[in-house]
Amino acid sequence: MILMAKGATPDDIARVCDRVRQLGFTPHEIPGSVRVAIGITGNQGPVPPEHFQSLSGVAECIPVSRPYKLVSREVKPEPTVVSVRGASIGGGGLAVIAGPCSVESRDQVFRTAEAVAATGAKFFRGGAFKPRTSPYVFQGLKEEGLRLLDEVRQHFDLRIVTEVKDTETLSAVAQAADVLQIGARNMQNFSLLEAVGRLKRPVLLKRGMSATLQELFMAAEYLLALGNYQVLLCERGIRTFETMTRNTFDLSAVVMIKHHTHLPVVADPSHGVGIDWAVAPLARASVVAGADAVMVEVHPDPSRALSDGQQSLTFDAYRALAADLARLDAWRSG
Amino acid sequence: MILMAKGATPDDIARVCDRVRQLGFTPHEIPGSVRVAIGITGNQGPVPPEHFQSLSGVAECIPVSRPYKLVSREVKPEPTVVSVRGASIGGGGLAVIAGPCSVESRDQVFRTAEAVAATGAKFFRGGAFKPRTSPYVFQGLKEEGLRLLDEVRQHFDLRIVTEVKDTETLSAVAQAADVLQIGARNMQNFSLLEAVGRLKRPVLLKRGMSATLQELFMAAEYLLALGNYQVLLCERGIRTFETMTRNTFDLSAVVMIKHHTHLPVVADPSHGVGIDWAVAPLARASVVAGADAVMVEVHPDPSRALSDGQQSLTFDAYRALAADLARLDAWRSG
Amino acid sequence: MILMAKGATPDDIARVCDRVRQLGFTPHEIPGSVRVAIGITGNQGPVPPEHFQSLSGVAECIPVSRPYKLVSREVKPEPTVVSVRGASIGGGGLAVIAGPCSVESRDQVFRTAEAVAATGAKFFRGGAFKPRTSPYVFQGLKEEGLRLLDEVRQHFDLRIVTEVKDTETLSAVAQAADVLQIGARNMQNFSLLEAVGRLKRPVLLKRGMSATLQELFMAAEYLLALGNYQVLLCERGIRTFETMTRNTFDLSAVVMIKHHTHLPVVADPSHGVGIDWAVAPLARASVVAGADAVMVEVHPDPSRALSDGQQSLTFDAYRALAADLARLDAWRSG
Amino acid sequence: MILMAKGATPDDIARVCDRVRQLGFTPHEIPGSVRVAIGITGNQGPVPPEHFQSLSGVAECIPVSRPYKLVSREVKPEPTVVSVRGASIGGGGLAVIAGPCSVESRDQVFRTAEAVAATGAKFFRGGAFKPRTSPYVFQGLKEEGLRLLDEVRQHFDLRIVTEVKDTETLSAVAQAADVLQIGARNMQNFSLLEAVGRLKRPVLLKRGMSATLQELFMAAEYLLALGNYQVLLCERGIRTFETMTRNTFDLSAVVMIKHHTHLPVVADPSHGVGIDWAVAPLARASVVAGADAVMVEVHPDPSRALSDGQQSLTFDAYRALAADLARLDAWRSG
Repeated sequence: MILMAKGATPDDIARVCDRVRQLGFTPHEIPGSVRVAIGITGNQGPVPPEHFQSLSGVAECIPVSRPYKLVSREVKPEPTVVSVRGASIGGGGLAVIAGPCSVESRDQVFRTAEAVAATGAKFFRGGAFKPRTSPYVFQGLKEEGLRLLDEVRQHFDLRIVTEVKDTETLSAVAQAADVLQIGARNMQNFSLLEAVGRLKRPVLLKRGMSATLQELFMAAEYLLALGNYQVLLCERGIRTFETMTRNTFDLSAVVMIKHHTHLPVVADPSHGVGIDWAVAPLARASVVAGADAVMVEVHPDPSRALSDGQQSLTFDAYRALAADLARLDAWRSG
Repeated sequence: MILMAKGATPDDIARVCDRVRQLGFTPHEIPGSVRVAIGITGNQGPVPPEHFQSLSGVAECIPVSRPYKLVSREVKPEPTVVSVRGASIGGGGLAVIAGPCSVESRDQVFRTAEAVAATGAKFFRGGAFKPRTSPYVFQGLKEEGLRLLDEVRQHFDLRIVTEVKDTETLSAVAQAADVLQIGARNMQNFSLLEAVGRLKRPVLLKRGMSATLQELFMAAEYLLALGNYQVLLCERGIRTFETMTRNTFDLSAVVMIKHHTHLPVVADPSHGVGIDWAVAPLARASVVAGADAVMVEVHPDPSRALSDGQQSLTFDAYRALAADLARLDAWRSG
Repeated sequence: MILMAKGATPDDIARVCDRVRQLGFTPHEIPGSVRVAIGITGNQGPVPPEHFQSLSGVAECIPVSRPYKLVSREVKPEPTVVSVRGASIGGGGLAVIAGPCSVESRDQVFRTAEAVAATGAKFFRGGAFKPRTSPYVFQGLKEEGLRLLDEVRQHFDLRIVTEVKDTETLSAVAQAADVLQIGARNMQNFSLLEAVGRLKRPVLLKRGMSATLQELFMAAEYLLALGNYQVLLCERGIRTFETMTRNTFDLSAVVMIKHHTHLPVVADPSHGVGIDWAVAPLARASVVAGADAVMVEVHPDPSRALSDGQQSLTFDAYRALAADLARLDAWRSG
Repeated sequence: MILMAKGATPDDIARVCDRVRQLGFTPHEIPGSVRVAIGITGNQGPVPPEHFQSLSGVAECIPVSRPYKLVSREVKPEPTVVSVRGASIGGGGLAVIAGPCSVESRDQVFRTAEAVAATGAKFFRGGAFKPRTSPYVFQGLKEEGLRLLDEVRQHFDLRIVTEVKDTETLSAVAQAADVLQIGARNMQNFSLLEAVGRLKRPVLLKRGMSATLQELFMAAEYLLALGNYQVLLCERGIRTFETMTRNTFDLSAVVMIKHHTHLPVVADPSHGVGIDWAVAPLARASVVAGADAVMVEVHPDPSRALSDGQQSLTFDAYRALAADLARLDAWRSG
């Protein structure tokens, strides 16, 4: 990794990038508030600093020891802030992302969006294309679902977070979505990662059900290596031997992601635990552990939800939680 | 599930399928050697048998209790045989699938193919498109790799097993492949499953790294529900806490798949254990546990392999193993 | 389970217990603030309520559906409070348990005890008998360690929590300990559980490394079935595939234990995550998730600790954490 | 590790041991067929060979890199053979250990013992003291069970393998047992390991439910460090996310144990898979993977067994399996 001096010019940067390419490697300009860094990938083993030290504008050459590079705090110490139409995640305050598991009807999403917006949350979640274990169950409203999400976006001060399931539907989903969610089962769908990386749109990348944190970082690296730094990493529970909860919510992942990467962290306790009454304490815990955003499932009538009803909050439960989260956010900020 | 009488006519079958559609469900004709069964999917809860019992040619209505249906032995008691250009998997004898992890060069695949064919094996494996955890390592020779595999197919009595990574490259891969492999990371890539299901080509479906067997069966159900019954299920090790082996090879999966489904089982001890000297005993064990095929990685010079070198067999080790497997296959048959 | 009326006399209770014994089962008097319940164990399948309904003082007969009974909130809805020489765990406020992993020297424990007591914490932890994976490493100061703990108890307003490793040393440990800790590896050492259960001394029972919560509840049931209700349940991380942390701290366990049992919960983030800088955020999270106590490892010089140095807090880090925990405790109480 | 020359005298050995003790470490004489090795434990980091090279009878000093030492093949390349009253495990041929999970009655054990002995098996298993998850279920016949096992021993050419649960009952169990079994839940009950290590009786040590292989080796190291080399290591399934089987039988453990240690390996597919019809294929697989012994549960009437009925074989199923195992043993030997 090459750290440029504060006064380095665009020409200086271009010359360093050229030199990297001459060596057969790939340069990555890494955004920074005061100075620019240039990551090098494609090398095996260390690259001798002599290649760059004498170039104009180069401040320092720093070897990066881990397999993940562009996501690493070693390479970019300042936290990344993902900004979405005036609302941001990662800048210090807590963002709340709420909404139903699946988009089911106009009435359902509008009533939920109203309840969500009323708490001051700026992000609305809802799935139109649903990856489901069984081919015989509800797979989402698909294009109709996207249309409804787009309506929500126009009626409320809410940004849409929705899942993209495959490259075929990517451009349609990208029109309705402010943030493209890549689901746990697709965390290592590298073709999808590359297609989304090229779009340069904000991405919420969920940790795979049995992915190590290093694998999550490497999956994000696919996005950053294509120049997309607008990436949120999401902990949503991992698969273990325990059966009393749907998954095992790994709160230490929130702490590890904050420490090792510069990317914002989203906690998803709804999938993490899978039981409605257990969502609130884990959501609160995520805030004091350092999460930049909390994502929860909310439904007007959880018992009739077409998916994930057992882990969705009622409006009342959601409102109580949102108030708690705001108080804890104030607590941790001051 | 509706079991037709032996003498049922095509008209009888069509009438039953129409009745299923009238009820709002989907009928599936299930191939059988002497009589036809019709699976019903799309229903929630049991379908009353009265709808069908009086129709001509109907022998019996059998409720299927599990979430997987078309893959189940309840629905199709006879084992499925997957036939590929004169060689079959599932018919009783053992099939051997061998070859390198990745296609690296013409010389590499031809030398390996020669060694594989010489042992009497009928299937050659080799990856052209490689899903890799890191974006910075060898990702396969891609189209060039497919071209080399096609050459192997023309020079040897070998059928090609190669991985399809995404729908974009599916038609190209399908031209070079006799058997389309869906990798562990893609087991729940439902869009890819659907695209492959529609192709009606033999498929080798690998169990996901942390997929339960029921999830594997449901993933196969996506293929069968689209009319593709040419499906092989592959155990390749699961992720556990143990670190001395790359994965934990779950041999009981071979036994469970044979018991609960009618599909042939492939054991992949190379990925299962990840250590060259441990492959042979686990391959042998797979045969006596009932595997229909064993898939192993072989390389002319494992220490120089571009991927998976530490688990690849030398030609000598492969030949010794192939001889052992043949003896054990004879043992279990008689 | 038989719920007695508020005015039930000791004679009423004795008569019910006699009837239970006549049926071949075991009665358990369950302490309650206003009325007494009598649990029945030893039965297979439900016990018909007619046996008891006509007896004097019986209010209600309630079937208990789960395999754990005496620990269950179904049987005892009020939370249990464990009182230890004037300090209590479970009564609402947060208890802090802090100290070194192992007792190493008089100087080490006294300096640490001073730092711990100065923050207002009422419980001191420290191991004299250490179960260690390898026979070749430090196994604790043993009797000498107990002696030092006893000195700490006499010099400070601190209650001693220390591990009992086996029945041979139980009576010695019980003399120095205010709370007997049963370690993760001994959670299903049923002989030790029975010996400790008979002692009727406060117990801190750690969840086994790969124990399900139901198994933890059943282990506690061994203690309660012998009449010992002074039991704390402790989450200390479970074993998963993740390697970036020592264990996976299962915070949802805190929520589940509070919901399903009446016993106080202790969170041990030090073992849960195994990395010093990650202990504080997880400790804070445990408070807002509902833990009754937090247990952390503290050492005068973690880099020289004879065990668990990498997860021990310095005095400064501990003091900062203790202040945070106090503020969060106030937050959750009001 | 110090390897003595072939002609080394007892005095030479004694002198080396003295030198080890002078350095503050512990010497271990390791039995070998032609020459003696002396292991050193208690050291931290390497011991300089100069201390020993000049001593009479010393052939070579070999550094041992792994945390397990005495169990390692580095230290003792020849396989250990455990001999029990004329029958051995580890010498090349396959040993069969069969019998019920629990001793339930005289009739039950005698009928089972007769069936087991009739197949030529030399070892009988059966539990008198049963560690059970719940305090409310059958805990074994205890002393009465030991008495029945002792009768079996006197009436049949069978050696008794039975579990020792705690140090309190160790001497009683040791009188009835030819081989002391340490159960999975006690694998890291170090006090029990030390007590059993001192007895110098053959031990069957089961791998803990979530123990890594390295932890299993370290637990065995406790036994060997006390001079007890008569140790069998047993794979009995590990805990994973899969729920279709009781545990996940880790057959690669058999291969790893044989490779890294000199101790004989016992495969226990009954606990490994937990389903009667799946035991036979996994037992057969264990033989071709290299197991020295196979242990299976057999019961006159599995549906009425007081424990583990669902995984116990009927006499007929057992006889068929025993015949298969004998054929496979012949196969692998020639």
